[in-house]
Amino acid sequence: MKRTHMCGDLRPQHIESKVVLMGWVQKRRDLGGVIFVDLRDRSGLVQIVFDKDINERAFTLADKLRSEFVIAVDGIVKKRPQENINPKIKTGDIEVFAHDLLILNPSKTPPFSIEENLKVDEGIRLKYRYLDLRRPDMQRNLIIRSMATKAVRDFLYNRGFLEIETPMLTKSTPEGARDYLVPSRLNPGKFYALPQSPQLFKQILMVAGMERYFQIVRCFRDEDLRADRQPEFTQIDLEMSFVDIDDVIKLNEEMISYVFNQTLGVEIKTPFPRLTYSEAIEKYGTDKPDTRFGLELVDVTDLVLKCEFKVFRTAAEKGGLVKGINAKGCGSFSRREIDSLVDLAKEFGAKGLAWVVVEDESIRSPIEKFFSQKEMADLIERMNGQPGDLLLFVADNPKVTNFVLNQLRQKLALKLGLIDAKKFNFVWIVEFPLLEYDEEERRYVAMHHPFTSPVEEDIPLMEEQPLKVRAKAYDLVLNGVELGGGSIRIHSEDLQEKMFNVLGFSKEKAKEKFGFLLEAFEYGTPPHGGIAFGLDRIVMFLTGSENIRDVIAFPKTQNATCLMTQAPSEVEPKQLEELSIKIHENLK
Amino acid sequence: MKRTHMCGDLRPQHIESKVVLMGWVQKRRDLGGVIFVDLRDRSGLVQIVFDKDINERAFTLADKLRSEFVIAVDGIVKKRPQENINPKIKTGDIEVFAHDLLILNPSKTPPFSIEENLKVDEGIRLKYRYLDLRRPDMQRNLIIRSMATKAVRDFLYNRGFLEIETPMLTKSTPEGARDYLVPSRLNPGKFYALPQSPQLFKQILMVAGMERYFQIVRCFRDEDLRADRQPEFTQIDLEMSFVDIDDVIKLNEEMISYVFNQTLGVEIKTPFPRLTYSEAIEKYGTDKPDTRFGLELVDVTDLVLKCEFKVFRTAAEKGGLVKGINAKGCGSFSRREIDSLVDLAKEFGAKGLAWVVVEDESIRSPIEKFFSQKEMADLIERMNGQPGDLLLFVADNPKVTNFVLNQLRQKLALKLGLIDAKKFNFVWIVEFPLLEYDEEERRYVAMHHPFTSPVEEDIPLMEEQPLKVRAKAYDLVLNGVELGGGSIRIHSEDLQEKMFNVLGFSKEKAKEKFGFLLEAFEYGTPPHGGIAFGLDRIVMFLTGSENIRDVIAFPKTQNATCLMTQAPSEVEPKQLEELSIKIHENLK
Repeated sequence: MKRTHMCGDLRPQHIESKVVLMGWVQKRRDLGGVIFVDLRDRSGLVQIVFDKDINERAFTLADKLRSEFVIAVDGIVKKRPQENINPKIKTGDIEVFAHDLLILNPSKTPPFSIEENLKVDEGIRLKYRYLDLRRPDMQRNLIIRSMATKAVRDFLYNRGFLEIETPMLTKSTPEGARDYLVPSRLNPGKFYALPQSPQLFKQILMVAGMERYFQIVRCFRDEDLRADRQPEFTQIDLEMSFVDIDDVIKLNEEMISYVFNQTLGVEIKTPFPRLTYSEAIEKYGTDKPDTRFGLELVDVTDLVLKCEFKVFRTAAEKGGLVKGINAKGCGSFSRREIDSLVDLAKEFGAKGLAWVVVEDESIRSPIEKFFSQKEMADLIERMNGQPGDLLLFVADNPKVTNFVLNQLRQKLALKLGLIDAKKFNFVWIVEFPLLEYDEEERRYVAMHHPFTSPVEEDIPLMEEQPLKVRAKAYDLVLNGVELGGGSIRIHSEDLQEKMFNVLGFSKEKAKEKFGFLLEAFEYGTPPHGGIAFGLDRIVMFLTGSENIRDVIAFPKTQNATCLMTQAPSEVEPKQLEELSIKIHENLK
Repeated sequence: MKRTHMCGDLRPQHIESKVVLMGWVQKRRDLGGVIFVDLRDRSGLVQIVFDKDINERAFTLADKLRSEFVIAVDGIVKKRPQENINPKIKTGDIEVFAHDLLILNPSKTPPFSIEENLKVDEGIRLKYRYLDLRRPDMQRNLIIRSMATKAVRDFLYNRGFLEIETPMLTKSTPEGARDYLVPSRLNPGKFYALPQSPQLFKQILMVAGMERYFQIVRCFRDEDLRADRQPEFTQIDLEMSFVDIDDVIKLNEEMISYVFNQTLGVEIKTPFPRLTYSEAIEKYGTDKPDTRFGLELVDVTDLVLKCEFKVFRTAAEKGGLVKGINAKGCGSFSRREIDSLVDLAKEFGAKGLAWVVVEDESIRSPIEKFFSQKEMADLIERMNGQPGDLLLFVADNPKVTNFVLNQLRQKLALKLGLIDAKKFNFVWIVEFPLLEYDEEERRYVAMHHPFTSPVEEDIPLMEEQPLKVRAKAYDLVLNGVELGGGSIRIHSEDLQEKMFNVLGFSKEKAKEKFGFLLEAFEYGTPPHGGIAFGLDRIVMFLTGSENIRDVIAFPKTQNATCLMTQAPSEVEPKQLEELSIKIHENLK
């Protein structure tokens, strides 16, 4: 028998066609003299009818079918009787009368059923991944992932990009996260590192005159895993020569828009809005703002510098920040609801949460007594407070104030149902600070990486006011999640040297860390810049997945193990011997 | 200045256009009052003219230009005077008169010149790979590689394949080559292995109902490197469900034909010819035959069983093989030429090479005296010997006879100019033996891998005559080089158990080695099969490269080091400590 059609593709137009289908038994129902089987392949389901009167041998064999048996069916497509039409499935108008049946393979009873929205322990799903991946939602996730990478490649290829592979066995990254190491057998005592990103190679490819490079590439970070992290993950990585910020941003927003359109059929308008880093921090308290809703943060520090409420005044005097959110129309919250917001703020690290309910003629607030009427009126005006509004304030150092109000803003939006789950709100964050001060290392460190170019007009500030220097860096944020980021790189030797000075690297140290790249830069480096996106995160948005493991075929657990293959595992002593390494005594 | 055109794209149609070009200085010539600069970008070269009378500032600046400086030029395209037209370059009809010049970056004098067909030590090229990759032939290689992978993806995507990523951090492969290991920090004493191929995962994806999977994927083998091997290499890997041999072969020959057409514009006819393994060994002495020329091997063992030439007779009696090549028209070879063939045969491992020159009425041969006239006449007839031919014979065990004659056949073809370098002769080798006997391990081992399906009609032979069982395996060979291979897999539990029995694996041992895959197979496995191609080798053919390192952006040396980054390298003791490993004392 040779397969002629896919199950899910059959439609009324196929009625009376002879078809051969192959797939998995989803369900068998025996109605006495007639057996119905739902047959499933990658394309969907179709109903097969085994009628004793058509082929008794096939009917008898069909009686042995159980869930997940693999079969081949030779039959004829028929219109379903009106009363049996099932509008819930695409093939619901028809059914296939089987004239022959072949059992290609039986199956044990699976440990869970192969169906959408399965509620079963994730550990079981990961152990039996081959069954979990049979479920329609997981199949859809991998199909969309495949479509998305195809769309990326089509788009970039048409824009003159070359896909160029960079090494997986490479050198330990200076200034990065923790590397995965690979002992070298031919070079005993030495190690390769798996790449955290192809950053240095893509810059080298620009020096090499490739002009437009991209790669969809596996990257590795040996970090303690959070819910949305995997030890290996995939980046859409690209780099361009002879460009500045606007070129990179324009190309990439068009690419992202194209990918969403090709996979979901939605139109995403470009250009995407842009926010400077300082605007984002001011309005949202974060550089990854969810712009699908309002509830923006408002700075009132200047208004409370002289007030008698000590918490506010002290924060304001000490260089802290006092900021508020106007929870529009939430003046009707019960005391209990307000208290739970206060608790939430404390959980997130605030010392407290001050609140003011604006009423028609008066206000209601535990801090009212510390403010003159004028002061309170100014505060309410700044917050755009109207009767019925609830104003919430945090006073602390800038980091805490912004962090707490960002969290509170999101919780409030959820509670108030302000979030439209269907919206894709993209925003570029630009003009990041070039540097930040690392308290532990007691030096300035690059916020992105040491090759990020400063904004030209800020270069004179590099020595005197390094924290004021803005970088030519950009992040793309979608609904409060960072999808990717990049920068225009430094291509002038002088500027690079200046940057290393600010970072406190001597020439020798810089050479030790970045030797070959610095040497390459001496041979005619074009201006260049690029970006890297997290493919896994993009696919999470495309599929509406909340768990990164649902968009990866064979993911690892939080302990970096694979429950299906039992990797990592112990290896033979001979293997270690050949690599000139030993494991610690207590582990043997 | 904003780039408007690429250098190599300018044509007479652009005459009088204002253009902004950016790129690298290939060459500067000063003709007094006029400076000519050849400007290069990824698209090619164009001649820029700096005329003192047009812009003195630009002219003065142009005087400072040296090779590999990065510049931007604003100018106007002009027709070249008739006498200066250069038909050797695509832009040879025009030149660009510069109105402005910007030096974007200077360059040190490169250690070698950036030009095609450079003759320079490969070590220097690898160290300065960023300069080596600027050379037009290397750029072309990477461009063709990018085009080839795009063509593969377009083809497979249109045939319903999904590209699915499989893990890089996985489990040590049983029955494979040596693995690269990665110590796990979170699971001390345990190791991941980098994949030698995604074989198990792609079979799991078939169990998972993905039906058509492909991936262009990095693979790793820690073997001592031969000239055409790299520690990391790239495979085009695919697997299909509900198929048999012909389906896989048809799809893949169409894919390969498409890739050659898309990258080189050549038409490759399908279907490709097929040879069974035994036919290939018989005619060519190898399962990787170069079919661009004749000089086929002829078995004469049966004719020499009773002859008096002891070397032949003994070989024939002992189950060896006596085979010959008819070097058509080489009867005119000098004695010295013939002796050098004899030496060659000995170098390849033969004890000697017998030869017969067929002349008009007689023959000339050192072994003539050992043969009756009838015997010699039969021999010559079998060899299709005509006056003027040189017949060459090797007698030894089958392995040596075939190996030596295959080598000799190739050397002869080269010497005689029989090889058409422009021909792409594809051939499928099919019906491989399922098993071979491993003298060292004293057991049967799978010639491909333990999941390769036997040909149905040979299954009854598995226990009694295992070496006679043919496999549903296939290799694709191009001009004597194996591009890839694969097989239809065993999907029945019974047959798999039979196979493990032949291999001498107990149920326990099989479970230990392949546990999760065998378990997966119990849950409704569809019939499936697939193939994997070596991308690097395919690109070598597409680019006419003889060195695998010329088709990889950042390759490793034979010692598995990267001369540019100096990987592998020593790492910090803290890194090893975190991984719970130590290097051997004597290496510290």
